[in-house]
Amino acid sequence: MESTKDRIVGASAELFRRQGYAGTGVKQIVAEANAPFGSLYHFFPGGKEELGAETIRWSGALYLQLIDAFFDPNDIVGSVENFFAGAAETVRETDYADACPIATVAGEVASTSEPLRQATADVFESWIVRTAGYMAEAGIPEKRARELAISTLAILEGAFLLSRAGRDTAPMAIAGATAAAAVRAALP
Amino acid sequence: MESTKDRIVGASAELFRRQGYAGTGVKQIVAEANAPFGSLYHFFPGGKEELGAETIRWSGALYLQLIDAFFDPNDIVGSVENFFAGAAETVRETDYADACPIATVAGEVASTSEPLRQATADVFESWIVRTAGYMAEAGIPEKRARELAISTLAILEGAFLLSRAGRDTAPMAIAGATAAAAVRAALP
Repeated sequence: MESTKDRIVGASAELFRRQGYAGTGVKQIVAEANAPFGSLYHFFPGGKEELGAETIRWSGALYLQLIDAFFDPNDIVGSVENFFAGAAETVRETDYADACPIATVAGEVASTSEPLRQATADVFESWIVRTAGYMAEAGIPEKRARELAISTLAILEGAFLLSRAGRDTAPMAIAGATAAAAVRAALP
Repeated sequence: MESTKDRIVGASAELFRRQGYAGTGVKQIVAEANAPFGSLYHFFPGGKEELGAETIRWSGALYLQLIDAFFDPNDIVGSVENFFAGAAETVRETDYADACPIATVAGEVASTSEPLRQATADVFESWIVRTAGYMAEAGIPEKRARELAISTLAILEGAFLLSRAGRDTAPMAIAGATAAAAVRAALP
């Protein structure tokens, strides 16, 4: 059974990705989590900022599992294509709400909260390292694998933004093709 | 001389890109703009949302001028390289605060405000059409030029996000090289 703390973090993650960090109030979080108001400060004495950092790291770990589920060094180009296709399906199925779990928050906090900025930087770095690992396993030299992982994540994040803004998955499809082509060109 | 209305929009644009839409209060906007509080509702009877839409469109028009300043169909690969180099310089010089003027807001409003979402979609589309125009002038077939403009914008937006989060311009440099290579490969 999910603990109260887990429900608070899960509800925060969902609300942050739909409406951002500043636009989400702690009252809404505890209501969505079906948790007593005081429990938020019991589990997160640092309040919303501490909860925010925990939520960012929790979402980051969940997404790492998604990378593991999609990436296969024996078909690295197909992995990238499938990842973007899955991303397009998710944004369409959620009415263009669910995309990257930390992107909006990362933009909001980059210049306003050092602990939250650091949390987003750590999460992005973990995704880059994991993706680069699969690319290196596929035979791409390490330095190039890291560059490709960075540009793949960058174009994915930008495509999420354009797809949500335009309520259209076309940018995701185009970005996926571009990312896959770059990986294909780097294969030995 | 800048009018009070212009000062309000300019201050909003600056605050939105640094701390997002929800994180920016109307009191802070009028204070930054050195404008009387009532003037905001005088110029924008719809309040913060109407001001938000106007700010998004105003920022979008300003960025169109930046595209015109950087893009040259006679050196389209160099144009892309220079644009990303300029973007990297801007984020570094502004202590990783100033990046895309509408990206954070676009993420925040995509699922929360239909008029603001539409404004961000219109601005992204205007940038795509303008950039695709330069690419087509450079000899790239129209459909491909549009795809390239979309993937160039996507990777730029994602690189802004990664650069701000990590306080590092490396993602911008890598994204610029990837975008330039894609354009080079599409040239006749």
